[in-house]
Amino acid sequence: MSGNTIGSLFRVTTFGESHGEMLGVVVDGCPAGLKIDEASLQKDLDRRRPGQSKITTQRKEADQVRIVSGVFEGMTTGMPIAALIENEDQRSKDYRHISQSYRPSHADFTYDQKYGHRDYRGGGRSSARETVARVIAGGIAKALLQEFGVSIRAFVSQVGPLELKKNFRELDLDVAESNWVRCPDATLAQQMIEAIEKVKAEGDTLGGVISAVVTGCPVGLGEPVFDKLHADLGKGMLSINAVKGFEIGSGFQSTHLKGSEHNDLFVQAEGKIKTLTNHSGGIQGGISNGMDLEFRVAFKPVATLIMPQESVDSSGKPVTIEGKGRHDPCVVPRAVPIVEAMTAIILADHLLRNRSSRLHVKDSP
Amino acid sequence: MSGNTIGSLFRVTTFGESHGEMLGVVVDGCPAGLKIDEASLQKDLDRRRPGQSKITTQRKEADQVRIVSGVFEGMTTGMPIAALIENEDQRSKDYRHISQSYRPSHADFTYDQKYGHRDYRGGGRSSARETVARVIAGGIAKALLQEFGVSIRAFVSQVGPLELKKNFRELDLDVAESNWVRCPDATLAQQMIEAIEKVKAEGDTLGGVISAVVTGCPVGLGEPVFDKLHADLGKGMLSINAVKGFEIGSGFQSTHLKGSEHNDLFVQAEGKIKTLTNHSGGIQGGISNGMDLEFRVAFKPVATLIMPQESVDSSGKPVTIEGKGRHDPCVVPRAVPIVEAMTAIILADHLLRNRSSRLHVKDSP
Amino acid sequence: MSGNTIGSLFRVTTFGESHGEMLGVVVDGCPAGLKIDEASLQKDLDRRRPGQSKITTQRKEADQVRIVSGVFEGMTTGMPIAALIENEDQRSKDYRHISQSYRPSHADFTYDQKYGHRDYRGGGRSSARETVARVIAGGIAKALLQEFGVSIRAFVSQVGPLELKKNFRELDLDVAESNWVRCPDATLAQQMIEAIEKVKAEGDTLGGVISAVVTGCPVGLGEPVFDKLHADLGKGMLSINAVKGFEIGSGFQSTHLKGSEHNDLFVQAEGKIKTLTNHSGGIQGGISNGMDLEFRVAFKPVATLIMPQESVDSSGKPVTIEGKGRHDPCVVPRAVPIVEAMTAIILADHLLRNRSSRLHVKDSP
Amino acid sequence: MSGNTIGSLFRVTTFGESHGEMLGVVVDGCPAGLKIDEASLQKDLDRRRPGQSKITTQRKEADQVRIVSGVFEGMTTGMPIAALIENEDQRSKDYRHISQSYRPSHADFTYDQKYGHRDYRGGGRSSARETVARVIAGGIAKALLQEFGVSIRAFVSQVGPLELKKNFRELDLDVAESNWVRCPDATLAQQMIEAIEKVKAEGDTLGGVISAVVTGCPVGLGEPVFDKLHADLGKGMLSINAVKGFEIGSGFQSTHLKGSEHNDLFVQAEGKIKTLTNHSGGIQGGISNGMDLEFRVAFKPVATLIMPQESVDSSGKPVTIEGKGRHDPCVVPRAVPIVEAMTAIILADHLLRNRSSRLHVKDSP
Repeated sequence: MSGNTIGSLFRVTTFGESHGEMLGVVVDGCPAGLKIDEASLQKDLDRRRPGQSKITTQRKEADQVRIVSGVFEGMTTGMPIAALIENEDQRSKDYRHISQSYRPSHADFTYDQKYGHRDYRGGGRSSARETVARVIAGGIAKALLQEFGVSIRAFVSQVGPLELKKNFRELDLDVAESNWVRCPDATLAQQMIEAIEKVKAEGDTLGGVISAVVTGCPVGLGEPVFDKLHADLGKGMLSINAVKGFEIGSGFQSTHLKGSEHNDLFVQAEGKIKTLTNHSGGIQGGISNGMDLEFRVAFKPVATLIMPQESVDSSGKPVTIEGKGRHDPCVVPRAVPIVEAMTAIILADHLLRNRSSRLHVKDSP
Repeated sequence: MSGNTIGSLFRVTTFGESHGEMLGVVVDGCPAGLKIDEASLQKDLDRRRPGQSKITTQRKEADQVRIVSGVFEGMTTGMPIAALIENEDQRSKDYRHISQSYRPSHADFTYDQKYGHRDYRGGGRSSARETVARVIAGGIAKALLQEFGVSIRAFVSQVGPLELKKNFRELDLDVAESNWVRCPDATLAQQMIEAIEKVKAEGDTLGGVISAVVTGCPVGLGEPVFDKLHADLGKGMLSINAVKGFEIGSGFQSTHLKGSEHNDLFVQAEGKIKTLTNHSGGIQGGISNGMDLEFRVAFKPVATLIMPQESVDSSGKPVTIEGKGRHDPCVVPRAVPIVEAMTAIILADHLLRNRSSRLHVKDSP
Repeated sequence: MSGNTIGSLFRVTTFGESHGEMLGVVVDGCPAGLKIDEASLQKDLDRRRPGQSKITTQRKEADQVRIVSGVFEGMTTGMPIAALIENEDQRSKDYRHISQSYRPSHADFTYDQKYGHRDYRGGGRSSARETVARVIAGGIAKALLQEFGVSIRAFVSQVGPLELKKNFRELDLDVAESNWVRCPDATLAQQMIEAIEKVKAEGDTLGGVISAVVTGCPVGLGEPVFDKLHADLGKGMLSINAVKGFEIGSGFQSTHLKGSEHNDLFVQAEGKIKTLTNHSGGIQGGISNGMDLEFRVAFKPVATLIMPQESVDSSGKPVTIEGKGRHDPCVVPRAVPIVEAMTAIILADHLLRNRSSRLHVKDSP
Repeated sequence: MSGNTIGSLFRVTTFGESHGEMLGVVVDGCPAGLKIDEASLQKDLDRRRPGQSKITTQRKEADQVRIVSGVFEGMTTGMPIAALIENEDQRSKDYRHISQSYRPSHADFTYDQKYGHRDYRGGGRSSARETVARVIAGGIAKALLQEFGVSIRAFVSQVGPLELKKNFRELDLDVAESNWVRCPDATLAQQMIEAIEKVKAEGDTLGGVISAVVTGCPVGLGEPVFDKLHADLGKGMLSINAVKGFEIGSGFQSTHLKGSEHNDLFVQAEGKIKTLTNHSGGIQGGISNGMDLEFRVAFKPVATLIMPQESVDSSGKPVTIEGKGRHDPCVVPRAVPIVEAMTAIILADHLLRNRSSRLHVKDSP
């Protein structure tokens, strides 16, 4: 079974290669009656688009979304929604020199071994360009979630060694969208941008961390025992190119605490049962508890360097690789909408899945 | 869609509640012709069993596995394999007092909200007792993987603040199984045991980290783009009770490195293409590259405390919770076989999935 | 992917062999809050049970259902429901003589070729004994459907050449359950019984047709384009042992009519939109239209004969096969509850699936 | 869960509406290394294309396939294959008059009730135009099957009351493609054409039967117990627009035979185990036995008539419907490639699924 579909009820299938004719997505299972605003979808695509600032790749792609099915007179019909993005800036010649070489920490070697025949142009399907399709699907999922009051915000909380130490709740998250690096601390953002420009000048790259927070998530999303909400969120995040780690709530830090320090005590407040702290990150027993969902995603430094690296070719002979394309020195700023998109896709799926939890449903979720 | 099944081709479905009649598992999709040794399955169950040492819960469960279908004359037939474990030490009275109360950082509240009707005895299905079924399925998966030379080892690398700083490659991993806490560093193991005994005396609990290493994993496992091998491993791990984080290879540490430091350079050695370093944790582009798989799993401190905690009941009224049962002060020692089991289940599934990657298959994987 | 699970949201997995320790079923995805009456489940098992009359096999099986998970205090919890049936009358010696022989029109040959290792006792998993697990799951599905006013009735409309020519709407369907053969026409039923007794005396067998009618099926069940309601019903029926054909509504007879004769004209009656005729069998465009569902299922004559037959063994050498067990001379009377069960399973699944069709759901279906 | 995907390993997802921008298909799971010849795909599309003869609709659609992903240098890469067909002859005005009316025996009413918002133009997604996407996927599946010697032939064996009585094995099936109606008996074909022209002149329509035969099908395809090969074939056929019945091998006729007449006796011939007769239609116990697969599919008369019909609108008010478009008076000639395509899709899926049946696979299937 190939792995190009995610979701049980809100099912997202992507297709297309970095330098193929087009990229696309089919969203099957989106309920009928949802208003789809192409401008909203485009907004997230623009946040992900290459060439938007000096610290992103200078490739030029309009990334204009075109919905070709499943939406009639601006509203979903319950039929599969297909959307396409044409590839404009293909520049296949950039990649011919690596058709037989294995770029370090790329998928060239593993694809070759697994499939025997691959589209080597720009990494083919292994390129992060594929995520443009996820952002479209995420936009549709966001529209669905919005109907039920769910809102998703992601931002950059670390670039290389520069970490956001402040509690994000004391910051204005809107600030994140006002700077190139998408960090809600303007001062730190400036340092991050400088750090990225510095490695870019060296032909080197940086990694970082994206944090996400979901407000308005209803109680009850997530399915025991394997499809716990954070397990599915984790899978969604780990499926994004360059992601090496995921943690929900207190995450790896939780291992340093005692149970008496870590437990989130229940209280009643404003007629609702809440928890005093949120080490659980909004999920208990795999099911959302009504508190904000909070998680963090680690991105390794970009593997494509504009400096020579030693490697081998498909026959095992040593070769020197030198990145000639136009690449991101740090992927996290452009990955913010991708993290949001995958979050939205997972939550939309669980929102629909939750409609089977009880014999009678009043209104979902 | 309920979430009690994992896997696409090697499909594992578990059932049963902590204090119900029995727990069980159905493994559908295991190929015919695999020898099943019940003693091997039992060995992992014994590693997971409560009451095996002073630092684990003193509950008594024989956890004797009984295979009731799918195996004929000691060999799989390709039919679904069902296995059962009777619950002996049910002691429902331990739990009646919390039927209306929400234990902090447990699933009581979320299950109640989601389903409206729950088996509150011992946490019902949300109890980690469910993982006994996973360990059986994992044992079958391990037998399958063994046929193809794949071997899985997990061990405790952190308990509370006590971290294994040594590179595990310089240690004898067999040592891990010779001490109660399953840490391959005997000296550190002793400190960990003392730390656990100390919190146990306080009625408190600790968390920790389990590290896993897979040797002999063939090249080619993992399916782009959503079902990347580490994405599915991550989901498997995050689906284990009390897990809050997952990282593959360099994980969160990767964010502190530059691309030139992080990239794993390819070389030819012993007629095979390998990488000089393994920051990738054996997976590139979501597909195994033939190097060892390496990952880490963070477990929060156990939520059940033997000390009073403030909480609310289902009507929102304040109550005091006091753990009366026999619980683990630290879950990681017993979770080692569970991490191995989930790893085996995910890998067995991907090993079978990989048989579709090419037009002609010689032998799998 | 093995095929022992059916359903997307109401997921039924069966396990067990004819002469293994037990047969069982896991129903995952049944909503919480449904009252489960074991006596009702048992009633359908008794309708399917061997030895209930002179025209069925004389094997003795109590077929006593035992629910071991997912039901707490008589009500579903949303957790997987596992149920078991012990095999009592195993008599493995009946089958040893055919361990190397291929019985004509049985699964011996194909299982051997596909899997290389099989449980030959009583046909192992290929035996219709497996359907006992389906009847349990069907009983749970029926309980779910009953909550929404859906009712399923199947009956025998043909045995060998004896066909029910009368319109079933002019008959009292309750009569079907008052005779051994489950035909609603008492006179014809008597002839059918005599025909079955006659072939039984010859050591031969008969086939027949089961008709089903579903009343109270809500409008809107079925998912275009592949999971049309009748496509899923057809698959469910064709998955029953010995079934060779399925037709919905006018079925094969429709090919003899012109469009102007066949079309079901819409009218308004009692404030509802209905159709004047029901050639569609209650399904249009793959979606239920509120009329009764009507379909027919063809069963071939039982393959096990109590007369000698020529065949070959696994080496291709000629052998003579002689049925020594206790077998049904005609399977359709006992297959009536199986047809109902599969109908219920498919409908319960689609009822839950339909909860995703619109943005807001008031109450399902 | 929406139903626009079929297949477990060879997964086919279609999208698009009759009068939308385009129709398309994503085939995920096709192994790498398969040569794809667009001309072959086009050939089947041309066999399905409207306007190919006087007895089919006169709509004009070029139906030119365009593969946009998953194929590189003429060969599959293991990545999802997406293919598109532009809608040229949209003529939306033909349909505006029925936007509020429910055409008899169409999906207008059920889609309206289920989704609340529908694309009424030409039936939207419920139109048989969707099958253009299936024919593309079927072409890819045929190419895969051809690598393993599997060949599929479908032909028309009945139109209205005109039935092919001769055994198709005594006819040259190539003749079927030489006449408009695709019947292998040239004389009967001429009568069928005249019958279709006659009803066309009346503004009426006819149904019919398509027979299919698969040669070279390897032993072992099909998965017990629910995913029996004929159960999945049946579902595939019943998912085609206008299909009302399916039978495998002896089908409904089997009910008239005794077991001793119906059983297919095994013999050894040319070093292989075969059966003397093939009432089983090539499938025993749900698994292919190496004999030809044989099945029949019943199509009702086309529901769109060019004569007035009484109906109601969405408010229940009586209206008169009159087909104004250009429609097929009999769908079976153009449905032949659709039946073949669905057969190919199901078989390709089971061929890949069979690779998991044994511990070691030499070559598939």
